[in-house]
Amino acid sequence: MSEGKVLIFGHKNPDTDTICSALVYADLKKKLGKNVEAVRLGEVGAETQFALDQFGVSAPRMMEHVADEADQVILVDHNERQQSAEDIDQVQVIEVIDHHRIANFETESPLYFRAEPVGCTATILNKMYKESGVEVSKEMAGLMLSAIISDSLLFKSPTCTEEDVDAAKELAPLAGVDLDQYGLDMLKAGADMASKTPEQLITMDAKEFSMGEIKAVIGQVNVIDAKDVLDRQKLVEDAMQKEVDSRGLGLYLLAVTDILNSNSIVLAVGEQVSAVEEAFGVSFENGQALLEGVVSRKKQVVPPLQSVLG
Amino acid sequence: MSEGKVLIFGHKNPDTDTICSALVYADLKKKLGKNVEAVRLGEVGAETQFALDQFGVSAPRMMEHVADEADQVILVDHNERQQSAEDIDQVQVIEVIDHHRIANFETESPLYFRAEPVGCTATILNKMYKESGVEVSKEMAGLMLSAIISDSLLFKSPTCTEEDVDAAKELAPLAGVDLDQYGLDMLKAGADMASKTPEQLITMDAKEFSMGEIKAVIGQVNVIDAKDVLDRQKLVEDAMQKEVDSRGLGLYLLAVTDILNSNSIVLAVGEQVSAVEEAFGVSFENGQALLEGVVSRKKQVVPPLQSVLG
Repeated sequence: MSEGKVLIFGHKNPDTDTICSALVYADLKKKLGKNVEAVRLGEVGAETQFALDQFGVSAPRMMEHVADEADQVILVDHNERQQSAEDIDQVQVIEVIDHHRIANFETESPLYFRAEPVGCTATILNKMYKESGVEVSKEMAGLMLSAIISDSLLFKSPTCTEEDVDAAKELAPLAGVDLDQYGLDMLKAGADMASKTPEQLITMDAKEFSMGEIKAVIGQVNVIDAKDVLDRQKLVEDAMQKEVDSRGLGLYLLAVTDILNSNSIVLAVGEQVSAVEEAFGVSFENGQALLEGVVSRKKQVVPPLQSVLG
Repeated sequence: MSEGKVLIFGHKNPDTDTICSALVYADLKKKLGKNVEAVRLGEVGAETQFALDQFGVSAPRMMEHVADEADQVILVDHNERQQSAEDIDQVQVIEVIDHHRIANFETESPLYFRAEPVGCTATILNKMYKESGVEVSKEMAGLMLSAIISDSLLFKSPTCTEEDVDAAKELAPLAGVDLDQYGLDMLKAGADMASKTPEQLITMDAKEFSMGEIKAVIGQVNVIDAKDVLDRQKLVEDAMQKEVDSRGLGLYLLAVTDILNSNSIVLAVGEQVSAVEEAFGVSFENGQALLEGVVSRKKQVVPPLQSVLG
């Protein structure tokens, strides 16, 4: 075990904000003299890889279990236990930097917990550089910018706040890129779903939630053309059913989000499919339901479902 | 219902930090143009009243239920549901400013949650005035100073950090008092236990915790002379037993904390009394156990008990 090293990581099924925020916060902590390392709990997606390549930064080291290597950890971009490392209960969480709801999180002792209702963890980190008086490098500016573009779908998501937009506009020149051009290129790099297997589609950005008595998994894929996914609807549903059966889920929801037109078509499997209809006031037709204007899992999918199931 | 008014309050059985931090954060929010009101969930203690009188500030309004008057609330100095308003589940928590462990807290949506491992909520609020560029009035400086002195037992508690000391030293001149003299006078005002009934003694600063399968209540009284409490040990234990029976508790612990000598004598009632012996490596003699150097419930009492019971 490295003496006293603190591991920093985001959630399972890492997205661009989770990977970039772990790397960025590790950079800030190191510059403040702390012994930390950014790690990740899953594969790097195509969108995230595009961002890492653009700014010449290596992906963090992959880990499944963290307790073998550290006594203390810092969570970024998540707090819910079931979204974290499998053995999270065996380590001490000493800090959390997040922008999600708080649930299934408990500590024995006080800690530094900073959650803000902004669109992206990196927006908070950008503030923390300023508060600490540490200069932001070109690479870290690029990673924070990429995270904001990703989480806000280039500012189209309702989760996006003025603070996120301001941070992105401030970071783009530091990163040396044109915000809109780079943003669209990066989102497109992550939106190619035709090459993914059904299993990849449903798990690549899937999060588990406790809602009332049941466990629900909500997956999301960003697409330019929903057909890339919906042409294989039956195979995708079979993959979802398999997860429902093996994990005892009450619901598996997949949101296929059109990032250009800003709406989502959802597929759902499990005993609680009717809860989806109730939550969003829609009916499934041929297994599909259109949620107009819905692009944010956090702000537009989880709360209505939680209200019905919680 | 006042249109859109947000209520700000601390925990049940309010102590000086909880009352003062609610008043102080309401002051800051109002100066930032927000429609808020500080309220309290219980009686004002003698120490707190001393502080309020010293700086000419009225106690917040007393409330038992909050949902009749507000849809949204801000919690200060606590986050655990069972320490909050009875109907906390019926309102939306939009902010938390706290310095305790996080547990039994869950939201549907993202929020502003700021917990820091410092000795006092007011220390965080003092920073927030600076971050907001709002000037601290003499009255609010006095309340923040009082909260820090109270929570840190005039800097003797192990929960006290450099930040707390720095904040107090900065606030004392603004409040126009001599830190040490005022601090001792205030603590003494709250340490007169001879005039309290056994029921008052065990409930005046009592917090409930979920530990593993059981509910435990941990009360604490600050004294100059422990005899004021221990002379009536049997009556105090009877009062604790009554609470254990009526509330189905596994443990009722009362820490009688000598604020001059910085240690505590504990009394315990309930099925889990042996957990106390295990947690602290002590044996009860005549129903009393001395915990040397223990003055902080949060840092020195809850974590060891949680380790044994959790």
